[in-house]
Amino acid sequence: MAETIRIIGIDPGLRRTGWGVIDSVGNTLRFVAAGTVVSDAARDLASRLKQLHDGLAGVVHSSLPQEAAVEATFVNRDATATLKLGQARGIAMLVPALAGLPVAEYAPNQVKKTVIGVGHGDKGQIRMMVSMLLPRARFDSDDAADALAIAICHAHHRGAAALAVRAAEKKAAG
Amino acid sequence: MAETIRIIGIDPGLRRTGWGVIDSVGNTLRFVAAGTVVSDAARDLASRLKQLHDGLAGVVHSSLPQEAAVEATFVNRDATATLKLGQARGIAMLVPALAGLPVAEYAPNQVKKTVIGVGHGDKGQIRMMVSMLLPRARFDSDDAADALAIAICHAHHRGAAALAVRAAEKKAAG
Repeated sequence: MAETIRIIGIDPGLRRTGWGVIDSVGNTLRFVAAGTVVSDAARDLASRLKQLHDGLAGVVHSSLPQEAAVEATFVNRDATATLKLGQARGIAMLVPALAGLPVAEYAPNQVKKTVIGVGHGDKGQIRMMVSMLLPRARFDSDDAADALAIAICHAHHRGAAALAVRAAEKKAAG
Repeated sequence: MAETIRIIGIDPGLRRTGWGVIDSVGNTLRFVAAGTVVSDAARDLASRLKQLHDGLAGVVHSSLPQEAAVEATFVNRDATATLKLGQARGIAMLVPALAGLPVAEYAPNQVKKTVIGVGHGDKGQIRMMVSMLLPRARFDSDDAADALAIAICHAHHRGAAALAVRAAEKKAAG
């Protein structure tokens, strides 16, 4: 029987962070859950980061993924926007790490290439391909669809990624 | 008898995050502790963010501050550096927020203006003024000295900052 690996994909953003959980069973993918964690723009930054943390921690503790994948942030020309995204991304990487999960990173064009077949494409194409690859998928936002695409990308690449993490750990230990 | 408020100042960085704890008693400041949380550059990003979280959480849980102050990051022209700093800063703001502390932010030139008297100055001047204002202070790095300077800045400005936070909360609730 093929091993089942449960994966959470996260698309970080200070205002809206999308998440999607899938099971990878051999060559088959199964939709588990997806959603969006929203922070309240009227609150101070620390409170908003806590909202993202609490929302993601709730998802991790209820869906019990074994591995996590986070989108490697697009480095914007606008430094203020980059800083905001960096802060949200710090939380998106921390929450699964605190739960003991290995956390892989994928560049946006790598995610698109895996899911659509080419390194570029709009939100509509991603939604369509996610719905084809995960027929039972229900998502409430483009961020949640993107998060499912990141999880799918990790399911395809996790063998190589796991080897890289083990090599890095070996280097750190040695 | 004057109220004692214990303040933690944090100077965030992915490689080294400085922290400093002081007591503000009326117009008097007292040194409590200071140090540096270091992340292991050979490890993956999620593990490094977890190291920063665990180190800062240990400090917060052992020194029990009531308020926190974090340096508002200098927005660098180098987007990759800004992103790294943003990720570390997200953790520096999250840890005290998770412990229920209000978290204030101060721009670097505001910290310097409060501690040195002018909005610019080098690391040596900050170390000297921190040592004068907190004669018992012991710090192991410039980052720890900067963190103490941030805590001192908050001790001076906390009245106004607390009012702003309450106004923002009132706005969020209303």
